[in-house]
Amino acid sequence: MGKSGDDTTPRTRTEDKLEKLLTVAAALMAKQGYDQTTIRDVGRETGFSLAGMYYYFKGKEDLLAQIQKRTFASLLCEQERVVNDGGSPEEQFRHLVRNHLSFFTRHMNELKVCTFELESVKGEPYDEIERIRRSYFKLTADAVGGLVGQTGKKTDRERRIRHITLFVFGMLNWVFMWFEDDRDNPVDHLADDMVDLVLTGVSGAS
Amino acid sequence: MGKSGDDTTPRTRTEDKLEKLLTVAAALMAKQGYDQTTIRDVGRETGFSLAGMYYYFKGKEDLLAQIQKRTFASLLCEQERVVNDGGSPEEQFRHLVRNHLSFFTRHMNELKVCTFELESVKGEPYDEIERIRRSYFKLTADAVGGLVGQTGKKTDRERRIRHITLFVFGMLNWVFMWFEDDRDNPVDHLADDMVDLVLTGVSGAS
Repeated sequence: MGKSGDDTTPRTRTEDKLEKLLTVAAALMAKQGYDQTTIRDVGRETGFSLAGMYYYFKGKEDLLAQIQKRTFASLLCEQERVVNDGGSPEEQFRHLVRNHLSFFTRHMNELKVCTFELESVKGEPYDEIERIRRSYFKLTADAVGGLVGQTGKKTDRERRIRHITLFVFGMLNWVFMWFEDDRDNPVDHLADDMVDLVLTGVSGAS
Repeated sequence: MGKSGDDTTPRTRTEDKLEKLLTVAAALMAKQGYDQTTIRDVGRETGFSLAGMYYYFKGKEDLLAQIQKRTFASLLCEQERVVNDGGSPEEQFRHLVRNHLSFFTRHMNELKVCTFELESVKGEPYDEIERIRRSYFKLTADAVGGLVGQTGKKTDRERRIRHITLFVFGMLNWVFMWFEDDRDNPVDHLADDMVDLVLTGVSGAS
């Protein structure tokens, strides 16, 4: 999704260079903040000239937008595959949480820049990223809907699904604030504790 | 806590002025970001001269530190009172979540500035704020510990308590990203959905 090279065609050198630029830029922005990161910093780290970088993007905001679009699109794509693999609602939900956390460990800088710099992209690129984020929200809300019983008033059920989906995103995204690679990786325990809490509450299976 | 005036002595004019400055500064920082907010902006909004403001704080970082210290200390103080009121572990947990969310609606700008600008305060003031935050984490972890059964290995139990406490903070703090006053206030439904999820999981009481 949103990539010029996919699994069946060899990646071009242009694609490799773009990927390197985006990876380094995300690392810099995650470390020192978007406001404090200049196009020149990215050039210095990657060995690109300013002119060379402007071949790939129009400016810093476009660079940030490309990081966000690529990251959300690739997360959504992986999660759509998880849903398409089928399974019970509980199994699907467990796979979604596990894969989100695994994606997080593989793209920590990118996701940080997605989460904390959402508002720094404006206009049409923002809208495009927002559409991908909405699709991911809907996919997750559908998975939560599969877990919530059919009993009770429709408005209550819809409110609970929305709230629980937001709580799940809260749990997942807050991981940025405390995750330490050597203490918390691999994420299996973390994923299972999160899923168990959602499925059965605090007194549930450990 | 950390205030020169308490409930038993009348507030001084100095205290009122300081409160006004901190409230306006938090609103500006929450709206336009800490980096983008200058001491001059705060002066313009409050009618204070630069010299007048330097009577209350040493500079922008000290201003931010005072907002954070005051907000966390006052949240911790309220929550300690909730715990001291007693009740079953489930009742205490429900009151803690309700009160955190109610505090959030009463101090939205301040909490936003606490959450997103933690790293902008350095040195001794950071350490002092960190001590208050650790106390709040411990208070919440103890409440979660009261909910988690005593069965299973000690290390598993400790890991689950830590994870679930972090999940609770994730759910609570993520509220910043989506809360809308006219849609989500009063917070009773939100608080109850969150507590029910933690106590009994997604299939629990609605």
